[in-house]
Amino acid sequence: MIVVHGGCGNPSGGTIQHEEDYHRGLEEAVRAAAAVLTAGAAALDAAQAAVSRLEDLPMFNAGRGSVLTADATVEMDAAIMCGRRALAGAVAAVTTVRHPVALARSVMETTSDVLVVGAGADRLGADRELELMDPDWFITDRQRERLRRAEEGVAHEDAGDTPIGTVGAVVLDAEGALAAATSTGGRRGQWPGRVGDSPIIGAGTFADSHVAISATGNGEAMMRACAAHEVSALIRHAGLDLATACETVIRDSDEIGMIAVDAAGNVAMPFDTTLMHRGWKRGDGPVETRVYR
Amino acid sequence: MIVVHGGCGNPSGGTIQHEEDYHRGLEEAVRAAAAVLTAGAAALDAAQAAVSRLEDLPMFNAGRGSVLTADATVEMDAAIMCGRRALAGAVAAVTTVRHPVALARSVMETTSDVLVVGAGADRLGADRELELMDPDWFITDRQRERLRRAEEGVAHEDAGDTPIGTVGAVVLDAEGALAAATSTGGRRGQWPGRVGDSPIIGAGTFADSHVAISATGNGEAMMRACAAHEVSALIRHAGLDLATACETVIRDSDEIGMIAVDAAGNVAMPFDTTLMHRGWKRGDGPVETRVYR
Repeated sequence: MIVVHGGCGNPSGGTIQHEEDYHRGLEEAVRAAAAVLTAGAAALDAAQAAVSRLEDLPMFNAGRGSVLTADATVEMDAAIMCGRRALAGAVAAVTTVRHPVALARSVMETTSDVLVVGAGADRLGADRELELMDPDWFITDRQRERLRRAEEGVAHEDAGDTPIGTVGAVVLDAEGALAAATSTGGRRGQWPGRVGDSPIIGAGTFADSHVAISATGNGEAMMRACAAHEVSALIRHAGLDLATACETVIRDSDEIGMIAVDAAGNVAMPFDTTLMHRGWKRGDGPVETRVYR
Repeated sequence: MIVVHGGCGNPSGGTIQHEEDYHRGLEEAVRAAAAVLTAGAAALDAAQAAVSRLEDLPMFNAGRGSVLTADATVEMDAAIMCGRRALAGAVAAVTTVRHPVALARSVMETTSDVLVVGAGADRLGADRELELMDPDWFITDRQRERLRRAEEGVAHEDAGDTPIGTVGAVVLDAEGALAAATSTGGRRGQWPGRVGDSPIIGAGTFADSHVAISATGNGEAMMRACAAHEVSALIRHAGLDLATACETVIRDSDEIGMIAVDAAGNVAMPFDTTLMHRGWKRGDGPVETRVYR
């Protein structure tokens, strides 16, 4: 089972420009993960592949095309977690690594650390010979324009735009292993160095032997509530089913969405916003994608 | 109820040099918090006061006297959380702010963010007119020597030294409000930018209306397990008492310790290492301090 998201949001109205681009991007991400599973790799590799694809697509807030900070720079955060091994890696405020999720994976696999931030994270990416880009490569004209409009107090012009968006993937593989990955450019106009829930294990990203979760939306609310870990706790300790656990956590916050899959293959994709970009594929079934409810 | 800790560890033997310094430092921190409560302030202010004092004391791994990174620099992390308001602030990889816990408080009180890292965090400290110091001010000769010895593979010479140490405080005030705060210089010889559990809400620091927790020790284990939040989850969802909840979480990891207080005033201070610097004071009672079991 593969589920991906490309952020949630509450556009002030209007229709989505190029809505088909979002559907196509979500489908590409699901297919990238499916190809990895078909090739015999595990949930962890599939989750990374899906997020990696979404990072490259400029319409999503992660990797190239990320929203800009108040300094008009791109700072990227990502996390990945393997439910079977209970291992995790994460990075924050990265400025040069093309695929932040790959750097998070590298933290997990090649260091004894869980989280590396800032210049040290970029340095790790260089040390591990990951693909590096000039910081300007991540900045799109569209995001430059949107930051300018946001600073002028003009509502963003595209209902598909999610200025608090994120991308993520959760995967259950044929062996029963679960994995989650999340990546983001943060919140439009954020103070440089601000880090949201995406790279925080237990807030925006979590996986164990019961459930894998990737969240999006109001990052600070999810950090205070340890939202992703709370879903797991409600399942493990309160005996809730996946859907009820997710709904319970969503209900306590505003402007959040999450995708989740449990060890039995149940899926939940709740959100309390008007839209959440999402796509999924069960086994050999078709790829489905949705933007609105 | 005030509880503080100054880190846990597994010294390879020998006796603690200047053990009385640790006892005196812990006592000063408890008294700083007690003075704040006596003056009528809340748990949050008391927790901050205790941690702020510990940050200034060079024998503890936080603020001045922090362990050094592989670059022989000091990078500091801190978090604070108000259980009553469910608000939190945190900073990581700070290099110039004298009291990182004050900067974490400033993130909580003056921004819409929860976590700010790196140069952006230092910039926030300057913007909020917090006390700044030259990065070299935080580096003590003792830590320079210990990094050198660690790089040479020589065991550290002082059994009181906790190279994975932390400082923290949890407080329950007369109004029943809970607060937790943690501060650290990280792990000796860490990769620059590595961030442990201390500033991660739900890992090393957490407070809600049930319990306040500050952890120390193996930061990566606590991040993967969301240790502090798991204590709260076990109390809220599994009906465990405070001591059992803490012991359950400690049991699943190596080299960790935590201090916790619940809304009824119960206290737990479990650790699976040979020592944990700790001090406490209940109401008008005396200040007590311990290093070993």
